[in-house]
Amino acid sequence: MPDVLFHVDLTKPMDEQDIPGHNRWHPDIPAAVSINPGSIFRIECKDWTDGQIHNNDDPSDIAHVDLNRVHVLSGPVWVNGAEPGDLLVVDILDIGALPDSEWGFTGIFARENGGGFLTDRFPEARKAIWDFEGIYAVSRHIPGVRLPGVLHPGLIGCAPSQELLDEWNRREAELVAANPQRIPPLANLPNPQSAVLGSLKGAEFDRVAREAARTVPPREHGGNCDIKNLSKGSRLYLPVYVKGAKLSVGDLHFCQGDGEISFCGAIEMAGWIDLHVDVIKGGMTKYGVANPIFKPGPVEPKFSQYLVFEGISVDESGKQHYLDAHIAYRRACLNAIEYLQHFGYTGDQAYLLLSAAPVEGRISGIVDIPNACCTLAIPLEIFDRDLSPA
Amino acid sequence: MPDVLFHVDLTKPMDEQDIPGHNRWHPDIPAAVSINPGSIFRIECKDWTDGQIHNNDDPSDIAHVDLNRVHVLSGPVWVNGAEPGDLLVVDILDIGALPDSEWGFTGIFARENGGGFLTDRFPEARKAIWDFEGIYAVSRHIPGVRLPGVLHPGLIGCAPSQELLDEWNRREAELVAANPQRIPPLANLPNPQSAVLGSLKGAEFDRVAREAARTVPPREHGGNCDIKNLSKGSRLYLPVYVKGAKLSVGDLHFCQGDGEISFCGAIEMAGWIDLHVDVIKGGMTKYGVANPIFKPGPVEPKFSQYLVFEGISVDESGKQHYLDAHIAYRRACLNAIEYLQHFGYTGDQAYLLLSAAPVEGRISGIVDIPNACCTLAIPLEIFDRDLSPA
Amino acid sequence: MPDVLFHVDLTKPMDEQDIPGHNRWHPDIPAAVSINPGSIFRIECKDWTDGQIHNNDDPSDIAHVDLNRVHVLSGPVWVNGAEPGDLLVVDILDIGALPDSEWGFTGIFARENGGGFLTDRFPEARKAIWDFEGIYAVSRHIPGVRLPGVLHPGLIGCAPSQELLDEWNRREAELVAANPQRIPPLANLPNPQSAVLGSLKGAEFDRVAREAARTVPPREHGGNCDIKNLSKGSRLYLPVYVKGAKLSVGDLHFCQGDGEISFCGAIEMAGWIDLHVDVIKGGMTKYGVANPIFKPGPVEPKFSQYLVFEGISVDESGKQHYLDAHIAYRRACLNAIEYLQHFGYTGDQAYLLLSAAPVEGRISGIVDIPNACCTLAIPLEIFDRDLSPA
Amino acid sequence: MPDVLFHVDLTKPMDEQDIPGHNRWHPDIPAAVSINPGSIFRIECKDWTDGQIHNNDDPSDIAHVDLNRVHVLSGPVWVNGAEPGDLLVVDILDIGALPDSEWGFTGIFARENGGGFLTDRFPEARKAIWDFEGIYAVSRHIPGVRLPGVLHPGLIGCAPSQELLDEWNRREAELVAANPQRIPPLANLPNPQSAVLGSLKGAEFDRVAREAARTVPPREHGGNCDIKNLSKGSRLYLPVYVKGAKLSVGDLHFCQGDGEISFCGAIEMAGWIDLHVDVIKGGMTKYGVANPIFKPGPVEPKFSQYLVFEGISVDESGKQHYLDAHIAYRRACLNAIEYLQHFGYTGDQAYLLLSAAPVEGRISGIVDIPNACCTLAIPLEIFDRDLSPA
Repeated sequence: MPDVLFHVDLTKPMDEQDIPGHNRWHPDIPAAVSINPGSIFRIECKDWTDGQIHNNDDPSDIAHVDLNRVHVLSGPVWVNGAEPGDLLVVDILDIGALPDSEWGFTGIFARENGGGFLTDRFPEARKAIWDFEGIYAVSRHIPGVRLPGVLHPGLIGCAPSQELLDEWNRREAELVAANPQRIPPLANLPNPQSAVLGSLKGAEFDRVAREAARTVPPREHGGNCDIKNLSKGSRLYLPVYVKGAKLSVGDLHFCQGDGEISFCGAIEMAGWIDLHVDVIKGGMTKYGVANPIFKPGPVEPKFSQYLVFEGISVDESGKQHYLDAHIAYRRACLNAIEYLQHFGYTGDQAYLLLSAAPVEGRISGIVDIPNACCTLAIPLEIFDRDLSPA
Repeated sequence: MPDVLFHVDLTKPMDEQDIPGHNRWHPDIPAAVSINPGSIFRIECKDWTDGQIHNNDDPSDIAHVDLNRVHVLSGPVWVNGAEPGDLLVVDILDIGALPDSEWGFTGIFARENGGGFLTDRFPEARKAIWDFEGIYAVSRHIPGVRLPGVLHPGLIGCAPSQELLDEWNRREAELVAANPQRIPPLANLPNPQSAVLGSLKGAEFDRVAREAARTVPPREHGGNCDIKNLSKGSRLYLPVYVKGAKLSVGDLHFCQGDGEISFCGAIEMAGWIDLHVDVIKGGMTKYGVANPIFKPGPVEPKFSQYLVFEGISVDESGKQHYLDAHIAYRRACLNAIEYLQHFGYTGDQAYLLLSAAPVEGRISGIVDIPNACCTLAIPLEIFDRDLSPA
Repeated sequence: MPDVLFHVDLTKPMDEQDIPGHNRWHPDIPAAVSINPGSIFRIECKDWTDGQIHNNDDPSDIAHVDLNRVHVLSGPVWVNGAEPGDLLVVDILDIGALPDSEWGFTGIFARENGGGFLTDRFPEARKAIWDFEGIYAVSRHIPGVRLPGVLHPGLIGCAPSQELLDEWNRREAELVAANPQRIPPLANLPNPQSAVLGSLKGAEFDRVAREAARTVPPREHGGNCDIKNLSKGSRLYLPVYVKGAKLSVGDLHFCQGDGEISFCGAIEMAGWIDLHVDVIKGGMTKYGVANPIFKPGPVEPKFSQYLVFEGISVDESGKQHYLDAHIAYRRACLNAIEYLQHFGYTGDQAYLLLSAAPVEGRISGIVDIPNACCTLAIPLEIFDRDLSPA
Repeated sequence: MPDVLFHVDLTKPMDEQDIPGHNRWHPDIPAAVSINPGSIFRIECKDWTDGQIHNNDDPSDIAHVDLNRVHVLSGPVWVNGAEPGDLLVVDILDIGALPDSEWGFTGIFARENGGGFLTDRFPEARKAIWDFEGIYAVSRHIPGVRLPGVLHPGLIGCAPSQELLDEWNRREAELVAANPQRIPPLANLPNPQSAVLGSLKGAEFDRVAREAARTVPPREHGGNCDIKNLSKGSRLYLPVYVKGAKLSVGDLHFCQGDGEISFCGAIEMAGWIDLHVDVIKGGMTKYGVANPIFKPGPVEPKFSQYLVFEGISVDESGKQHYLDAHIAYRRACLNAIEYLQHFGYTGDQAYLLLSAAPVEGRISGIVDIPNACCTLAIPLEIFDRDLSPA
């Protein structure tokens, strides 16, 4: 087992850990640990909500989750010798659950507290608990399904430079300003409430907490990309913006469907991740890389029987939208939910299932004006009976 | 070889064929041929432009293509016994090129005549010719690439009912009305110019030509879905809206990347398609199916080495958009094009390649406000050298 | 369509074709055609029996097949510039059926005329006819099965040198001498009866016919390897032993299980094969290649649900054999046949099915004295119902 | 984490564990633990040699290994309610290394002490140590290779009945009698030396030790099958011969090539395995199952680039053998070793690599008298450079 570079105690919140992590992005959050290129090490992670969700049948915790505390991240890890303009080569060697914590959760966030892709149709808080049985997960809340995991970090990235952070804050503030009263909001702006900033204290804490970006969206540095195929065995190339790179990781997922549609949609878990890091000097310029690139790992589950649902960019009211892949994927998801309801699942169960299972969401056609065509492919092997039309 | 139910002569335009097909959708376009459920038959198809593009190095034909003539379809095929509310089960048994026509083309349409996903960046007409070498395609215009095909019909569907057609025309007219001067237009409304309507003549022709929907967008019935995974060996379930189903097919693709981003972006080909059809009576209600669903075939090319590019919904000007998968995928594509240019490809070549090669375009995260995260995965096995970062 | 370099008329036997092929191996069989390295060309092939088996329900033709006429091969193809010691790089670009001949057959040869892997248990002649439905084959003689093809040439190779031929004849004669009365024989020695030797005539024909090796076994040059994974899209590296290489091909298979256990066990077909050839000068020495090597193609059917049967090297009488993979695989096959009989198949049907379907036959353990362990994996997706234990 | 039903202390030999396991097969070895059908539990296992091999560069331990101590197994596990004639349904949920023991070994056994598939060519003891880096293994003894694991139990099965045990002893004694002086022997007969028999003591120990079968070969009950595809996520159906089933497991492999050719050829490891068991009453008769059957798991590594080597049943002296798959596979292995030596590997390294890496060994043709054709497919993705011919 590699050395545990960053340890978590699941019984304590992130800000009470021996070495606290963080839940905001800022270049001045101090590195928690340091390593040399070529090292292999283990990072332990709390679940993204910092342990707010419990292994029971009551979705109240989902309903009242404090989203100011998310996402709790482990790190930053200082990589000796890494400098702005480099590419950090991160091998995701393995991911697993912590002993005595071999379970995860999928939630539908309430419309008024987080929402999700289909919040108009599913506005109430809901929860599914998953038990890990080796490579598989099963849920007492979604019967008839056993799905092999596609373990991946929902969130990984290096710290932004001050310039990049300023740019994030500028553009997101501009968006929020367009409709400041909206629920859920158009974006989450910096918010000192419940900020965890590593070892920072006092005035420096206050300054950074006011400036630091929330972790919710993916951005240029990667961050909360929620890409299920960034799975065990992947090699990831991350842009470096600050000296030492300051790599952080968290939000581990046992599995996820493309889109992670219910927002808390993956099978969210606490756990550990084993990494190997190296550096390509000047790699950002050498390869013209502005956003992360990666090579997926070789052990994703293999399926051969998919049922594919199509969606187009006409909304439920019959309004035509122009090449809107968001709406097209939404319709594909709704079509799949409708179908699954004909096989005995409730709408909530189907929504949770599409969020958590390794479904493929594709932009199939994006040029045939005015309709985008998106597809959602469900692997039929996860069900204990045949769900094909007959 | 199955009986050729619908024959085309590649030297003649669609309206001069012995049995002409059509290039509009309307319930009153007469069926060209009929079959019984359980039948296997072959349909020949012209390329979607009706033969306007030629196997040479000059993109003038792309620049001046008459888009009123697209997409030329073979059919309609009357399926005995099919009725509204049924599901037509269509097995796509095989697809191939016609003898002496073993080539295809990929085009970038000019901004002022069709455009495409990245028309702002690539406004000029361009063309790549592909030669088919068995299961592979190679292009003298994009060196260093040999890609195995994922043959599929870009366009397949049953005729709409009058009600459905009216609905299409209503909602698309509404969209166009929002910005009627836009180039390219927001949608293509009915247009009698160059309409081909099977055997219709005289006043009936004129009426139908005025009402009939253009074939460009995918809609509820399927149509121009451009889904690369609807490939050889797939089983497709199509909603039936009119008596006899009136199935039509065309726009065959030797290969395509998800999104078909350059619009004329697949490897467009003339060819044949072998189909088997059957009927599930009342299947639309029985399974709650409003848009087509399908099970992909088992012989799509198998890759193991992908390089994946991420994109987020911040546009090139730095403006933040709200969960806009269109923009996120656009950025992923631009990131990939930038990368490929570091390996000697021109921007045009890279754009054509992403359109035509079997790249995977995924909606990875669609809930992490305000950024959608889309990914574009390029199979590295199509290149004759290693394109990984090193 | 590539130029047809070698044409066959299915209504005539091989020795009456305009340009006859051959059914023996000998360096002095004259080349039928010639090509340059870099060329793409099409070769048409009769089925391996030269058309002796017919599309009907009567296995008499199987029972009385004249095995002196097999395997009829198309070629030899002279490759300009190829010399002994080179490697011939052969790309198998595509394979297909001839129009009006879209069917194939699988036979169980009678014990007294050819036999097969399980001839002790299945001594009677049997036949299954398969109809090709695009990428799939179905048989009226084996219900409930639809299998995607793995098209490949059962037989491909370059002509042996005289030295190599002499060596073959020496070692095989030695083997036959060990038990000359055995039925079926231990090997098929040169036999002028029904020999077809291209354009050879007169005394030269007689001499070559006496010396030429039979085509039944695979040998150093490749030949009748019957490797299902040498499928469409493969790149094959063949040793060259004579000037011009003298490449020949035949015995096309629509599909085959590993081992081709019933001897006439593939789905045998007439058809065409498209090839591209090139030469690596001195490649045999450069890479130490004595037998062919190859890279399989990317479009083999993809399965995810296999049922695997084990066999060990104890024969049915209970006798223990030492690490005998032949017996271990035999037992695995018999175990699978027994299992399939519990799902309604007759023994004959099961035997034919294991021969023809894309089953995987593996040498799993070959060192655990005294038992070899071989496995047979059947893809469950080929059946129209679930054949798992429940 | 499931409850650890069977615990091992790696610092102690198997007979000194708190609850000792066993290294022989006999119905009267007492069950160590018991469970109910439907249970999930963890079994810890020592490596198959009981810890005789060490993580260093000196192969002396391989040379002098005491093979009387192998294979040390964990169990037997009594399954409540299981009876002779049932099928035990064993889900292999996951497999992993023990903390502080994340390494494995591959050995070439000396000819005079165990030997292996190619012992004539590689008679000296050799060793490669592998370090586990998450899903990958690397070896300081075989540079340029990083291979994803295919974790599986080399050995799993239920206890034989007395009748079955007697049959094993009868047939194996008969084989040994054919050549009693042979080195290595033709089979390993019962041998009390170093026997470990769970809690048995005194006269009962002595009796059982005299009768109990060695664990080396796979047999009807499964046992030491060494099937790499019986990997994580598999569902295995085991025949039950005694009341309580008495399931045992051991010989965990991080990876293995088909055939496990160097005998100690897998990446041998200590570790844990998580199982779920259930029972199909009367399943042996219901499905005609005499040997185990299984469905492989979905997370085996996915490769697309294989280089395949052929072998035929002519031995190195030029002698022709009749359809001998053992020799054909041997030749395929030797061909691959020869090839790898042209890329800088020593013969020993190549032999160890083919044993340990996830290579595919297939019986491709087994009916083309007199030559069997076997193939060995090496996934090229495991190398850090391109090993194709060029």
